[in-house]
Amino acid sequence: MSLPTRPLDDDIAIARRAKLKPIGEIAAALGLREEEWEPYGRYKAKLSLAILERLKDRPDGKLILVTSMNPTPAGEGKSTVTVGLGQALNRLGKRAIVALREPSLGPNMGVKGGAAGGGYSQVVPMEDINLHFTGDFHAITTAHNTLSALIDNHLHQGNALRLDPRRIVWKRVLDLNDRALRRVVVGLGGPANGVPREDGFDITAASEVMAVLCLATSRSDLKARLARMVIGYTSDRKPVTVGDLGAQGAMAVLLKDALLPNLVQTLENTPALIHGGPFANIAHGCNSLVATKMALKLGEYVVTEAGFGVDLGAEKFLHIKCRTGGLQPAAAVVVATVRALKMHGGVPKDRLHEENLDALRNGLANLEKHLETLDKFHLPAVVAVNRFYTDTEREWNVLAERARERGVPLAFADVWARGGEGGLELAEQVVALAEGADRRGTVRFLYDVNEPLRTKIETIAREVYGADGVRYTAQAEKQMAQIEANGWGRLPVCMAKTPYSLSDDPTRLGRPTGFTLTVRELRPAVGAGFVVALTGDVLTMPGLPKAPAALKMDIDDEGNVYGLF
Amino acid sequence: MSLPTRPLDDDIAIARRAKLKPIGEIAAALGLREEEWEPYGRYKAKLSLAILERLKDRPDGKLILVTSMNPTPAGEGKSTVTVGLGQALNRLGKRAIVALREPSLGPNMGVKGGAAGGGYSQVVPMEDINLHFTGDFHAITTAHNTLSALIDNHLHQGNALRLDPRRIVWKRVLDLNDRALRRVVVGLGGPANGVPREDGFDITAASEVMAVLCLATSRSDLKARLARMVIGYTSDRKPVTVGDLGAQGAMAVLLKDALLPNLVQTLENTPALIHGGPFANIAHGCNSLVATKMALKLGEYVVTEAGFGVDLGAEKFLHIKCRTGGLQPAAAVVVATVRALKMHGGVPKDRLHEENLDALRNGLANLEKHLETLDKFHLPAVVAVNRFYTDTEREWNVLAERARERGVPLAFADVWARGGEGGLELAEQVVALAEGADRRGTVRFLYDVNEPLRTKIETIAREVYGADGVRYTAQAEKQMAQIEANGWGRLPVCMAKTPYSLSDDPTRLGRPTGFTLTVRELRPAVGAGFVVALTGDVLTMPGLPKAPAALKMDIDDEGNVYGLF
Repeated sequence: MSLPTRPLDDDIAIARRAKLKPIGEIAAALGLREEEWEPYGRYKAKLSLAILERLKDRPDGKLILVTSMNPTPAGEGKSTVTVGLGQALNRLGKRAIVALREPSLGPNMGVKGGAAGGGYSQVVPMEDINLHFTGDFHAITTAHNTLSALIDNHLHQGNALRLDPRRIVWKRVLDLNDRALRRVVVGLGGPANGVPREDGFDITAASEVMAVLCLATSRSDLKARLARMVIGYTSDRKPVTVGDLGAQGAMAVLLKDALLPNLVQTLENTPALIHGGPFANIAHGCNSLVATKMALKLGEYVVTEAGFGVDLGAEKFLHIKCRTGGLQPAAAVVVATVRALKMHGGVPKDRLHEENLDALRNGLANLEKHLETLDKFHLPAVVAVNRFYTDTEREWNVLAERARERGVPLAFADVWARGGEGGLELAEQVVALAEGADRRGTVRFLYDVNEPLRTKIETIAREVYGADGVRYTAQAEKQMAQIEANGWGRLPVCMAKTPYSLSDDPTRLGRPTGFTLTVRELRPAVGAGFVVALTGDVLTMPGLPKAPAALKMDIDDEGNVYGLF
Repeated sequence: MSLPTRPLDDDIAIARRAKLKPIGEIAAALGLREEEWEPYGRYKAKLSLAILERLKDRPDGKLILVTSMNPTPAGEGKSTVTVGLGQALNRLGKRAIVALREPSLGPNMGVKGGAAGGGYSQVVPMEDINLHFTGDFHAITTAHNTLSALIDNHLHQGNALRLDPRRIVWKRVLDLNDRALRRVVVGLGGPANGVPREDGFDITAASEVMAVLCLATSRSDLKARLARMVIGYTSDRKPVTVGDLGAQGAMAVLLKDALLPNLVQTLENTPALIHGGPFANIAHGCNSLVATKMALKLGEYVVTEAGFGVDLGAEKFLHIKCRTGGLQPAAAVVVATVRALKMHGGVPKDRLHEENLDALRNGLANLEKHLETLDKFHLPAVVAVNRFYTDTEREWNVLAERARERGVPLAFADVWARGGEGGLELAEQVVALAEGADRRGTVRFLYDVNEPLRTKIETIAREVYGADGVRYTAQAEKQMAQIEANGWGRLPVCMAKTPYSLSDDPTRLGRPTGFTLTVRELRPAVGAGFVVALTGDVLTMPGLPKAPAALKMDIDDEGNVYGLF
């Protein structure tokens, strides 16, 4: 994601000029012992889970969540601000660590653009991070599909568990954009090739194994969560789990190294833990809990992000990840752009580069709703205006003035073009918020997990989205009854909703009112530990565009990559 | 593969006791510069292709091929002998390097048993090598399936190349045993999900990308080979290639690191390059050419192996790999076991542990045929009897006596139980053969690539298998005509035949005569650079057994793996 204040070199050119430190130096500066990390190339490392045990009595650093207003489809530069803020905090003399998600490989082959920050606020080595990195996604793909193969083999070998082949919910995955695999029939070609049945492939980021890995707190917890995952139902609707099949051990073996956080650095040598990358709609959209917990033991400040805006990312970060891991964030940064504000104020996409003060003022309603939401969570927030070169001075003045009027902390960030230097004002405000009062133990959850699913969903819809209420399709009603009958009703809820609107209609921008949220489907993710509530069609396997980025990629004899970013 | 002279600890227990050297020490001992290798963990490294350029004027070491008689289904311990011989050569003061294939992950989930040698002749770290290793197979899977996604996307977006969806020959792959994926229908669910068509998945080792990677000599050669791969045909039977689609650049980007040889070590710290793992039936079954070439620059001796016996492995190693790479092997080691000899002498599988001197004598006909074949190639050979604890002294005496009578070099190897120490006699004989005469430039190919396909296949059938002739099915005749019409008739032939018999009938053991080889199908592998001739059904996607090894696997909180080996 790149929203420069002025046109500059492209990300890869900037990244290639960076002076990286050997990863051992980064590890040593974090106080890690030699045996606590393993190199993967010169500039990447896997960190041992033993670090968590050794430092268990050390107090945690301060956790800062970077989130945003409802974004435009291009995104508002949240990862770039996260990286830039980490760099800026280091410049202020705070030992800061950045904790990000791993990018998915599939989308890189579709639309040009990696996912490792941008400009002078990137994590590096960016080619590696955007390609196979340390193999975590491939390990998850393999663990997921090994379970699929074991399920079909179980059907083929006599089906002792009496799985109904029509009621298998465990699909297959690949880390690719491949629409032709969304719906397939497998097991064709006669009795030697298994039992024919309908199936489909999701992208790896949508695998429940990914969500499980990102919420597991230890190897035993990982296995226990894998064992709880539902693979299908018998013909009399009894759930069959991975534990019933006995596949959790093999899956945990395949995830042996994938469970370990990855250490890299930013362009300014700020340590970065990049680990896990679950979908932000049918999953919770945060980096792994073990990486965040480890970062909190190793740094004074940990800057992390969650997918999409406050309504989806921050809500799930708080209600799912923080609740699961007992995390207490100290402050939130809400990224806004002049461009997104104007879009929420009614400007069409192709005229966002034109100055429009009225639209900007109108669009502020969207941002303000998100600030109110964070306030309900008792999480202090600062607005970070991520500057873009099409912004005007007058537009910035409107924002600054409104913030003063409302008493909202606001900082302009220019981290794309200036790196940490461009984030100093933001960093100072973050420190003021996080250190101004003791923030530990003060986050308030908006619902209790023991409430009925209906109550939990209603609370999110009303309190976070501003809906008047919730309507359920007949299918969703039936699924809710089944989920509660199976004893899964006390899990937190994971909302799948369009990220572009506060409502479930992507065209209703700004701060919509008078709407009812429609829940179409409920899916239990028992291993991950939440019930997904889908409010619209969610594509869990993307397709490639007419002119895929892949067809422009190349590599020379020295191994330099072109066209990936 | 493990054929011990006496029962011992299991492989994993032995491997865990090994004193590994940091991989940097192994690299330094090979004379590698710091910038020429990258660590992957403490005990694995990727080697830069720049090494080949820097050492291009250094004379090659001596290349030793380990091959075997027709094996029993359990195999005869070829990898174990390869590792043991490498260790033994080092004990003799020769700087030896072992060059092996990477194991496929899929089969490890099916039947217990990794593929990294055995006993005291293993390559380590064995868990890593048998799991994801350095990610090469995953990169190949991804490159292969990215092409698949681009093909289906091309159909979906208008099909400018006029590919006939019924004539797409490019399947998908996964590194798993999953019979339900052998035959599938993709693209179901309406126009948004692409064009419905029949498809199927192979195991990654069967991907043409694997064969291409293993025969490529540089990044440019890799791209050129990828571009030549055929993905399907138009409705008027014109071939459409990867180059027509323009996907070779992206595929080469995805294979950026997979093209680099992997350095590990044996239990006795002998350097080992483990790289690439193509099928030994529909592909050539050898480790990568770049790894072998690099090893020849770095060591005095390079010990390598090829899949199955002389009839398949050695023939393809010589006619395909050595021809492509201009390699000149110095000697061959033909692994034989008392067990396999008795089986070829008529003893049923469940009585192989009983002494049977007559059967042993009868079975020698199989071994002798292979020695005659190597003689036709002008490649001097030594027989390595891989000792097993059920062998008897009298059985060994029969072998020693027959070898003396025939003037055939023979050595007993006990490398499973004694490591390099148990391979000294073999190593001495290998050195005597390799240094006794200048072996460079003396291998003779049995056919010229410019001969017609029919002549090349006939030559292999008569000279290597001892067949009376070759019969073609109507389908194979038609395919041969099409392949020659497309201009691919001058490629070498890659035979796919049962490994258990010299003939195409797996039940005809010993040295069958009076048979005709039936070629059922011909498949062009234009990128790899050969035409596959299939003489029987070849399963390119294995299935899992009734009780898969995966269901017994586990990992503890310290990350120790159980049940993988």
